[in-house]
Amino acid sequence: MDLFNSRILLPTSEIPKEWINILPDLPTPMTPLVNPADGKPAPPELAMRIFAKECVLQEVSQENSIPIPNDLRAMYASIGRPTPLHRAYRLEKELGIEGDNIKIFYKNESVSPTGSHKLNTALAQAYFCKKQGINEMVTETGAGQWGSALALACNLSGIKCTVYMVRISFLQKPGRKILMKIFNAKVHASPSEFTESGRRYWEKDNNHNGSLGLAISEAIEHCLRDESIRYSLGSVVNHVLLHQTVIGQEAKSQLSKIGEYPDIVIGCAGGGSNFAGTAIPFIREKIRGVYPETEMIAVEPRACPSMCKGKYMWDYGDTAKMAPIVKMYTLGHNFIPSPIHAGGLRYHGMAPILSILLKNKVIKTVMHHQTDVIQAGLLFAKTEYILPAPETCHAIKEAIDQALKAKENKEKKTILFNFSGHGFFDLLAYKEYMDGALKDYEMPTEEIEKALSAEDMPKINEAFF
Amino acid sequence: MDLFNSRILLPTSEIPKEWINILPDLPTPMTPLVNPADGKPAPPELAMRIFAKECVLQEVSQENSIPIPNDLRAMYASIGRPTPLHRAYRLEKELGIEGDNIKIFYKNESVSPTGSHKLNTALAQAYFCKKQGINEMVTETGAGQWGSALALACNLSGIKCTVYMVRISFLQKPGRKILMKIFNAKVHASPSEFTESGRRYWEKDNNHNGSLGLAISEAIEHCLRDESIRYSLGSVVNHVLLHQTVIGQEAKSQLSKIGEYPDIVIGCAGGGSNFAGTAIPFIREKIRGVYPETEMIAVEPRACPSMCKGKYMWDYGDTAKMAPIVKMYTLGHNFIPSPIHAGGLRYHGMAPILSILLKNKVIKTVMHHQTDVIQAGLLFAKTEYILPAPETCHAIKEAIDQALKAKENKEKKTILFNFSGHGFFDLLAYKEYMDGALKDYEMPTEEIEKALSAEDMPKINEAFF
Repeated sequence: MDLFNSRILLPTSEIPKEWINILPDLPTPMTPLVNPADGKPAPPELAMRIFAKECVLQEVSQENSIPIPNDLRAMYASIGRPTPLHRAYRLEKELGIEGDNIKIFYKNESVSPTGSHKLNTALAQAYFCKKQGINEMVTETGAGQWGSALALACNLSGIKCTVYMVRISFLQKPGRKILMKIFNAKVHASPSEFTESGRRYWEKDNNHNGSLGLAISEAIEHCLRDESIRYSLGSVVNHVLLHQTVIGQEAKSQLSKIGEYPDIVIGCAGGGSNFAGTAIPFIREKIRGVYPETEMIAVEPRACPSMCKGKYMWDYGDTAKMAPIVKMYTLGHNFIPSPIHAGGLRYHGMAPILSILLKNKVIKTVMHHQTDVIQAGLLFAKTEYILPAPETCHAIKEAIDQALKAKENKEKKTILFNFSGHGFFDLLAYKEYMDGALKDYEMPTEEIEKALSAEDMPKINEAFF
Repeated sequence: MDLFNSRILLPTSEIPKEWINILPDLPTPMTPLVNPADGKPAPPELAMRIFAKECVLQEVSQENSIPIPNDLRAMYASIGRPTPLHRAYRLEKELGIEGDNIKIFYKNESVSPTGSHKLNTALAQAYFCKKQGINEMVTETGAGQWGSALALACNLSGIKCTVYMVRISFLQKPGRKILMKIFNAKVHASPSEFTESGRRYWEKDNNHNGSLGLAISEAIEHCLRDESIRYSLGSVVNHVLLHQTVIGQEAKSQLSKIGEYPDIVIGCAGGGSNFAGTAIPFIREKIRGVYPETEMIAVEPRACPSMCKGKYMWDYGDTAKMAPIVKMYTLGHNFIPSPIHAGGLRYHGMAPILSILLKNKVIKTVMHHQTDVIQAGLLFAKTEYILPAPETCHAIKEAIDQALKAKENKEKKTILFNFSGHGFFDLLAYKEYMDGALKDYEMPTEEIEKALSAEDMPKINEAFF
């Protein structure tokens, strides 16, 4: 147990110079974003009215890599990139796997000023908006992790930021809201009185709890109001996954400095950007036959198992049916996941890129119960001392399971997972666990079937494309 | 503005190999810890019944340096030492001091798993207790910053930890309490039913708010109950300041790597360990005439200005008069500071080492109002992106003031301050500031005079020593 060398650091000169674009390597072609208004592929003009122009170009690029502007790399440097890679020596010891047959590494994205990987794409999107002369960005947020990342990014790039925050979180989780305001963002409880979509609910009930779907509708409506505003997403779409590939690239080069390559790459998956950002550099080498045996495992909550129990089909990106329609593993846009603590994993669908990779068996997926993942997170905190967010606990649980399986089978395995964020704003989840009050949720298969055969699922004729 | 080089990192091999002991260099001799029971210097046996033996030896050592055991250095490595040193380029720019005449550097202790410098001594004290065969440590905590550091350290060293937490904080600030439990500590709201000192209040009122003084009494009583228990302090005493010198030593070597030496060293001061830990390596060189011009500035809240407005005299370390009597700058042990957000600076006295240095004009001291420091902290967060704890905001405010003064006077200055902790658990202070609801507090001089001439101030005859 060489604790002096448990952290592998890189100099800022080794911040990746490009993002890895997996689109050209996908085993089947990328599916388009479809306009919910007419069921046809969204023309670039439409997408560019919503997203930064550069991001739309990245969304459909067939280049193998896309250069990261040097000014943006400097921003990455100033928020703590390259982030450390850790060998989890003490966790290994606790699991009884001392020695070098089984090694657990984790990439530590929690060191960012907002506490998670979300800044990697927030900074990029704000940078491209700024370059294009956009002076305001708008987004929605649930618990506020994504909202605070975008708030910081906009503040850094000197543009306005407006966040529609689901009212129940706005009231129950004031911490993230304060953080967004510190970074100069305007935060509205959603439904609000500021948009037509919001007013419809707000006027009937000023204290309406809101939902993520509704907040998306408000943000998009807000964006469409003025030519100089753009909307921003924190996961799911291709360009967000692209920006997150800095995680996996750094991890790959940190591992290579100590002569390692992972046998298993693990990340939790809500919309998919954290898992994809970690795994894509390894996925490309797997597809290209460089390291064909590497296992890629996306971990979902049993309460919201889009890949594990959903179906691969066309669906709306949001409950309100205003966001583009995409082909993806989905539980149906009407699905309202149970209130698990891992708010970042409560999304009904999955990134189209990951959906294609799963359909083609390039990646695997597993699901775990909330109590099991928080238990794993506690064990991690007690041994590695960094308190994980409930989302991150999903990856930890699977890493522990894989290590124990390898131990039982007497296999040699190098395991890499992404420590996507810290849990300083999620202490209640741990309290409930320690008090024996944490509940598990599982969606019955027949309810999922029902949701997926709902009347209002979009009917897309692929022959049109 | 070279953002790629704004963080200066050191490899773990450069974790200091020794702590710097300032005692032999003090301009006037160190004053002893006095036994509150008889007013005479506490014999080592008595001190050793309370503190770890090794810590008592360090408390009075006249060696210039004390080796840090290699196992402890490995623990330092595994909690993120050496911590980064940052050049505050964006803050400088915001202050209009671009260029290289005025440079602001900060040592970032917030990267530790409990979010502050407190672990530097907690790990050391737990390590020495473990080595001595002690199987339980006990302490008191207010808001919980110190308690969570000791909880983690005990968990790491495999010994039990009991924390008496002031009940009002126990109820109002559940986050830190949960964190302590995650690290396996037993946390009791104080006053509790578990000690005689506690029961006296608890039996009359199960919901008594408690006070730090009372929590100290409970912790010491708990410690004296069993030979295998030791008590632990998070600041004030010599050995705690000694352990914190890893901060200043690392900063000194990080600055020297880029050819810098500070003109001004700044830290906030509650009990004094954070400021002392940062400044002592530079103080020694000032005293020895190597860099005689370096200014050392300890920053206090106007609501609790032990050095700025207190007197240098003998006083009890705690309200309950159970802790040792020390000679220090004090506002009187009966002084109950106003409820400012910087809970870590609400201590009536000041470390004896710093008191001697101030009396001999080696260090300076200033005080600031709560609103001014939070405003400075906000500016820091908006430019450097790391949210400071309210305590840390005091150092930031003074660093900004010094930079602006140098700008006005067209002087060249290199300023170093310690970023002692993050503010993720202190968002309310920022909210109150942004809402215009933050209040300032100032203790009238006549009230301090009155407190210091109170009947129950200890009468110590120095001729006895």
